[in-house]
Amino acid sequence: MNDVNELPKEMRTETDTFGSIQVPSACYYGAQTARSMIYFNIGLPTDCMPLPLIEAFGLLKKACAIVNQKFGLANKLSDAISQVCDEIIDGKLNDHFPLSIWQTGSGTQTNMNVNEVISNRAIQILGGIMGSKTPVHPNDHVNKSQSSNDTFPTAMHIATVLELNRRLYPALNSLHSALKKKSDEFLLIYKIGRTHLQDAVPMTLGQEFSAYAHQIAMNIERLKTSQIRLSELAIGGTAVGTGINAPKDFGKFVAQILTELTQVSFLDAPNKFEALATHDTMVELSGALNTLAVSLMKIANDIRLLGSGPRCGLGELILPENEPGSSIMPGKINPTQCEAMTMVAAQVMGNHVAVTVGGSMGHFELNVFKPLIIKNVLHSIRLLADVCNSFTDHCVSGILPNTSVLTRYVHESLMLVTALNPYIGYDKAAEIAKKGHTEGLTLREATLALGYLTEEEFDKYVKAEDMV
Amino acid sequence: MNDVNELPKEMRTETDTFGSIQVPSACYYGAQTARSMIYFNIGLPTDCMPLPLIEAFGLLKKACAIVNQKFGLANKLSDAISQVCDEIIDGKLNDHFPLSIWQTGSGTQTNMNVNEVISNRAIQILGGIMGSKTPVHPNDHVNKSQSSNDTFPTAMHIATVLELNRRLYPALNSLHSALKKKSDEFLLIYKIGRTHLQDAVPMTLGQEFSAYAHQIAMNIERLKTSQIRLSELAIGGTAVGTGINAPKDFGKFVAQILTELTQVSFLDAPNKFEALATHDTMVELSGALNTLAVSLMKIANDIRLLGSGPRCGLGELILPENEPGSSIMPGKINPTQCEAMTMVAAQVMGNHVAVTVGGSMGHFELNVFKPLIIKNVLHSIRLLADVCNSFTDHCVSGILPNTSVLTRYVHESLMLVTALNPYIGYDKAAEIAKKGHTEGLTLREATLALGYLTEEEFDKYVKAEDMV
Amino acid sequence: MNDVNELPKEMRTETDTFGSIQVPSACYYGAQTARSMIYFNIGLPTDCMPLPLIEAFGLLKKACAIVNQKFGLANKLSDAISQVCDEIIDGKLNDHFPLSIWQTGSGTQTNMNVNEVISNRAIQILGGIMGSKTPVHPNDHVNKSQSSNDTFPTAMHIATVLELNRRLYPALNSLHSALKKKSDEFLLIYKIGRTHLQDAVPMTLGQEFSAYAHQIAMNIERLKTSQIRLSELAIGGTAVGTGINAPKDFGKFVAQILTELTQVSFLDAPNKFEALATHDTMVELSGALNTLAVSLMKIANDIRLLGSGPRCGLGELILPENEPGSSIMPGKINPTQCEAMTMVAAQVMGNHVAVTVGGSMGHFELNVFKPLIIKNVLHSIRLLADVCNSFTDHCVSGILPNTSVLTRYVHESLMLVTALNPYIGYDKAAEIAKKGHTEGLTLREATLALGYLTEEEFDKYVKAEDMV
Amino acid sequence: MNDVNELPKEMRTETDTFGSIQVPSACYYGAQTARSMIYFNIGLPTDCMPLPLIEAFGLLKKACAIVNQKFGLANKLSDAISQVCDEIIDGKLNDHFPLSIWQTGSGTQTNMNVNEVISNRAIQILGGIMGSKTPVHPNDHVNKSQSSNDTFPTAMHIATVLELNRRLYPALNSLHSALKKKSDEFLLIYKIGRTHLQDAVPMTLGQEFSAYAHQIAMNIERLKTSQIRLSELAIGGTAVGTGINAPKDFGKFVAQILTELTQVSFLDAPNKFEALATHDTMVELSGALNTLAVSLMKIANDIRLLGSGPRCGLGELILPENEPGSSIMPGKINPTQCEAMTMVAAQVMGNHVAVTVGGSMGHFELNVFKPLIIKNVLHSIRLLADVCNSFTDHCVSGILPNTSVLTRYVHESLMLVTALNPYIGYDKAAEIAKKGHTEGLTLREATLALGYLTEEEFDKYVKAEDMV
Repeated sequence: MNDVNELPKEMRTETDTFGSIQVPSACYYGAQTARSMIYFNIGLPTDCMPLPLIEAFGLLKKACAIVNQKFGLANKLSDAISQVCDEIIDGKLNDHFPLSIWQTGSGTQTNMNVNEVISNRAIQILGGIMGSKTPVHPNDHVNKSQSSNDTFPTAMHIATVLELNRRLYPALNSLHSALKKKSDEFLLIYKIGRTHLQDAVPMTLGQEFSAYAHQIAMNIERLKTSQIRLSELAIGGTAVGTGINAPKDFGKFVAQILTELTQVSFLDAPNKFEALATHDTMVELSGALNTLAVSLMKIANDIRLLGSGPRCGLGELILPENEPGSSIMPGKINPTQCEAMTMVAAQVMGNHVAVTVGGSMGHFELNVFKPLIIKNVLHSIRLLADVCNSFTDHCVSGILPNTSVLTRYVHESLMLVTALNPYIGYDKAAEIAKKGHTEGLTLREATLALGYLTEEEFDKYVKAEDMV
Repeated sequence: MNDVNELPKEMRTETDTFGSIQVPSACYYGAQTARSMIYFNIGLPTDCMPLPLIEAFGLLKKACAIVNQKFGLANKLSDAISQVCDEIIDGKLNDHFPLSIWQTGSGTQTNMNVNEVISNRAIQILGGIMGSKTPVHPNDHVNKSQSSNDTFPTAMHIATVLELNRRLYPALNSLHSALKKKSDEFLLIYKIGRTHLQDAVPMTLGQEFSAYAHQIAMNIERLKTSQIRLSELAIGGTAVGTGINAPKDFGKFVAQILTELTQVSFLDAPNKFEALATHDTMVELSGALNTLAVSLMKIANDIRLLGSGPRCGLGELILPENEPGSSIMPGKINPTQCEAMTMVAAQVMGNHVAVTVGGSMGHFELNVFKPLIIKNVLHSIRLLADVCNSFTDHCVSGILPNTSVLTRYVHESLMLVTALNPYIGYDKAAEIAKKGHTEGLTLREATLALGYLTEEEFDKYVKAEDMV
Repeated sequence: MNDVNELPKEMRTETDTFGSIQVPSACYYGAQTARSMIYFNIGLPTDCMPLPLIEAFGLLKKACAIVNQKFGLANKLSDAISQVCDEIIDGKLNDHFPLSIWQTGSGTQTNMNVNEVISNRAIQILGGIMGSKTPVHPNDHVNKSQSSNDTFPTAMHIATVLELNRRLYPALNSLHSALKKKSDEFLLIYKIGRTHLQDAVPMTLGQEFSAYAHQIAMNIERLKTSQIRLSELAIGGTAVGTGINAPKDFGKFVAQILTELTQVSFLDAPNKFEALATHDTMVELSGALNTLAVSLMKIANDIRLLGSGPRCGLGELILPENEPGSSIMPGKINPTQCEAMTMVAAQVMGNHVAVTVGGSMGHFELNVFKPLIIKNVLHSIRLLADVCNSFTDHCVSGILPNTSVLTRYVHESLMLVTALNPYIGYDKAAEIAKKGHTEGLTLREATLALGYLTEEEFDKYVKAEDMV
Repeated sequence: MNDVNELPKEMRTETDTFGSIQVPSACYYGAQTARSMIYFNIGLPTDCMPLPLIEAFGLLKKACAIVNQKFGLANKLSDAISQVCDEIIDGKLNDHFPLSIWQTGSGTQTNMNVNEVISNRAIQILGGIMGSKTPVHPNDHVNKSQSSNDTFPTAMHIATVLELNRRLYPALNSLHSALKKKSDEFLLIYKIGRTHLQDAVPMTLGQEFSAYAHQIAMNIERLKTSQIRLSELAIGGTAVGTGINAPKDFGKFVAQILTELTQVSFLDAPNKFEALATHDTMVELSGALNTLAVSLMKIANDIRLLGSGPRCGLGELILPENEPGSSIMPGKINPTQCEAMTMVAAQVMGNHVAVTVGGSMGHFELNVFKPLIIKNVLHSIRLLADVCNSFTDHCVSGILPNTSVLTRYVHESLMLVTALNPYIGYDKAAEIAKKGHTEGLTLREATLALGYLTEEEFDKYVKAEDMV
């Protein structure tokens, strides 16, 4: 698609205010898209504008057409535009959006790409001549009451909210359920806790997993809080936020239609100047994704460490064996799901910095890092959702406790001495632990050797099951 | 204080489970603090554990003493501990907390520093011998029902919440008010909007400032959302989250007392394992501070660009002249408050990455990047609060519009042509703008030359005041 | 390719140590690739393992086959393997490498994907049955004397060095030439310098551009310094660095063959343990790319600010007009090349953080963030190269000075007063500048009004052309 | 010092071009410093301009005075200035530099602080009246041929180079020696290697430590490469790089004197415009520090994991026991030196992002994030140096191998099967390993049970000592 060497033979002429330019006859896009392909041949074909954004543009342009109809756009035009938008939403026209992310920072070229595709396809539907801009003009009709400056940020918010709802929340809910289920299963499996990577007091494996489950639950809460602000849309602000060339309350009406179309709540942004000039709310959401990445890094690191071995590691967990782990070491199995997850976490942290830098450098009435910002946010959401699903299905759900190892550690650890603090004080308890450590004694042996407790007292005070 | 070469002559012997060690007689701290000074001589004296954390420890240890009294700690001991805590809270013992941030990652040494200072000072109050641990033992009494693992994160949350409430919110409220006031003052001052740094359609200077005010209002909202989760405290979890050696509901009681002492709401964390093993909520807050930094970077950049000149810049704003700007160029004035603010914003972004990395690398039952995390969060809060106050008082409050420049730009710009779209369509409007640009005509001249409108029509359609 | 719903009908059976699995008959890959597609359906199809890495694997496997021949691999097998490698290098088998970046952190699955494709295609060439592993076994023959643990990092270095040499250096050289050419063209065009965005003393536009050119020259130097360390290869270390199952000096021989094949110098890494366990050198290179991003951000920001306007900005430069800039504002032109460049710069900064985090978290004998690291480094190189080419061709080469504006500013500025310091001292010079600023006088008027100099003295001392 | 409530009673009047202002009589600084204290009360007292920068200013102002003498500055003035500079270099006037880092982004206020202190102290030495600016004027004499715009970046480079040479290189050399020494000591101690945290093939503990040593050696090399560019100084560029008001070759002469004064090589920057407008070289150095942080994170993580236990961890290393590890768990010992090091590593990564952001946002002739950049770079150098020294002395030097554990793991691991690949092929070897894993057999037992080798063959092929 993006390879200029493979352009189809048949071409037609398209025009914009810079003059005429040839485009492939089979493509719906027009002159401005064609120009952008020449001037922004950067990172292609990998770094195309993300499809969820194109879909969001489909929804937005449809909503605008419906509202514009109320304000005088001919029914015939409005209906044709809506029909094309449905094709965009359904992904049928994906091949007609070839532009790079690395174009103008307002995303104007993608907004025009959408306008051009809708214009030409609607012209085709209505029996006109593609490229003629009649009867459906890309600017005067499709972009009516709109500017790239309000449509692009609006599409950013729509795409983000939809991807959260259909990808990330379900994946997080699954992961939460799987962790919660394990927490319940492991509720009474005793193990040694570890702080500073060193042996500490006992707990249960279920308690350990309850922390992971709680982390995920809190992250869902954080994301949903950010979604409230994300649901506010820039549309109606047009070029600089004043709403020039748009009817009063245009944004409010569009938000209502979008809510109907998507069944997700959208609102009119209270300050359109802020909504065009900044992406603070996208930076906020990216921060919430960053927090989720931090949580996932911790969980995946713990699980692979607890599952390390099989003979020379901690060996407390038995992780699912999915595939051969080495091209040279036969029979090797690795915690590969954890590895994919920690790599995704690192990527999301990096994406967050890109969003932060882009978000901070807007000037005056328009932040022109919009494609960068939406690319990174959608990338993070997609990766987090996919990796959570993969991790849930191919790792968490199949985790088993290695009970013999877990039990052995509880019996061997010296840190159960902590339970003696209330009886003999910290200093004597430390003396016991040190003696055990130095002389290789069990806690019981060391205690009795020092004579601080009787056998009966020791057995009464030091019970792992009373310590959790 | 931290310079080992200048230790006072008089010393006394302190002991811990590692044996005895000499400490300056004038200091209340004990053996473990002294050891930490030897083993962690890193970044001192600049990088001492931050004082708001020490104060938070004072509040926490007092609350614990009060609750411990209910659970059997002798009134005399509890009261003495509380009395010392009040001295800590009042900053009277600041010199007795000399430890580096760069110590053990659990902050155990600072928790013990606090325990030792309270123990020795309480012993002194009660007429005992410092270093004797009688009648107030640092572990058995001061640290009763506690662990570094739950006290340190609890103190982190307390310090953060208090600093937000007494420093950052007031500073943000002031900045918001100052920006809102300017937005009102400038409500009817017309100016040219700028997108992509290029001339765009008109707006008012008040509208431009309304975006800045709205940004700050939203940031306050974001921070307060995070505070809800920050108010949940780890205390009661003791060593690994099980609450070993603490009475049931200890954390709940402590949170209640802390709420009373500070008049800020604190709650018992619902999952203590998560509260010790992770700092997701601190990462979340750091993300909110990062978003604020992004906003401030934008606002300060805009204001210094709008105030650039005085003769060769944009020159729309007249910024307060506070001090000479150059050691070589006489009479030079610079937007120095904006510079301090943008530098702080960059620092906060960096601090956020440090917190993110530290937050992601906890292992098992304890995240051991605690001092790093609290240092960076408190640093960010402090800098943001201070720079907002400075920026408000020494820049925003004194900003004046340069009305002659603002008016001239509105008259010269060609982008008012946008208002003609609904009358003559985008393509003809573009033709007008290009003719004006190429031939150096005004918009009116170019329009009439092309004959697309009569003089009356032009004057009726193109009015800056109708475009905002 | 990656859409499991569209798998071709015809399948064949492949096996690995986990058993048998169906793969499409038309595909050369085998069981382990097929398994990875099931277990790592993450971020596809966008986030496939980058093609330059696959090409590097082609080069590496060829070099290994050549060296293995010396150590006993049958000529027939070695030749067949080499032949397939040439097909991989030529991109003919690109469709057979469908795996996600987000797989095992060692890249084992991609190493096996390469081994399997080579095995099956070589079997085909030699008339055998695909999937039979005879006469070319993916592990025993293709992967002979190798491990994923040494091949993957080796391929990372090869791909990075090649992409630097064929993409980034040429793009930077072009950009440097274009900036240098402008610097020469503008050598005697006087302009007002700006510090703190405020008017400062004069200079020439050529001097300003000389700084940009120098920045690029220094960045080339930095990258080439890093390349020295990048040219050291892990191959020969096999599983953990000891070189188990590889002949002595295997790595040295492979590096020699690679140097011959690519005409770029490669060396044997002096410490194989470090070469597998860390990616410090990739982090170093990422730091050099980050520095380049910082430079480009500065240059692009300057150029768009200097070109701002056309009537309400600084207006010193006239940038090429490539395309319409607005969907609503007719005739608007924007500095879009600068916007693409600044967005890329932000992305590279983010990618650098991802690389840093991944680089820091290796454990023991193997860093398992390899796919993350190579993805981000290759992404940064590609984007930087593409955007530099675009910026050179579509922006820098066409920049013109707006001489009337440049001259006017020099005449209006008060900061030429600086030249009087040596004659009347800083304090009197400041008095002159302040008088001019307050009363709207020219520098000459203000000087004469204060009587510090005669007309003749003023005209002698204050000459912009003497100040540069 | 920084607490305005505690200003001394006695005051004197100082003046600048903004008028008169009161300063404490005991202080040498003047009006501009006093103004900065009012307008930039941000982050104090912690965030004072770092002392190594003040020292560097002392060296620079001395060198300038010496060169200025050649160009006409009276010997008496030059000598007095040099004398005061020596006092600054010796730290005797530290209390007279109270300004915040968060001031003007050019550091002008600190340059003037230095000029004022030198002026007043020199006046005092020469018997004049402080504040009179006679016979030593802060601008006309101390700052002669200089601007903040060239002195501040010059002082940044001097301070950085000196701190590298006297702090960081020695610390890295010590750490390298300690690691190398351990590598030699452990040369023949066999252990199981680990990849993906899972058991892999054998190696020696000395080989593992050789990677750490090599990492440090490479980092020293990276830093020294950056130092070459850091040694180039901006001095001579004055206000915007043209060198206005400075004699020809002023920068070259100053660099020569500085080389003599410090015994470290300094050079004249080849492009002064770049040297003022950018800090690319500081960003580059920060990248090298970031790479070092990445290395240290890896090393410290490995060491604490290898030392984990004592009974429920990997337990391969015995780390020095320096202090009690827990306030609640008696006898607990933690890898606290590793924790300090990993926290410092995270901080350096954060500082690097702050430097990157600041470095990218310069405008035109001057980057105004200078104080931010130097603060973060000096902070990173200091922390890295201190923590390396601490880690060397209190951890690495005392590390002992836990030979019984190391030996046990080698005997138990199944991954020695890898040595059989050349004899029986990967697939049969995998069958052996899987049988051993599933049935709990040793490698020998599993091999013999499957009958792929005789006892003699097995014992000949599978020897850990032949695999390293």
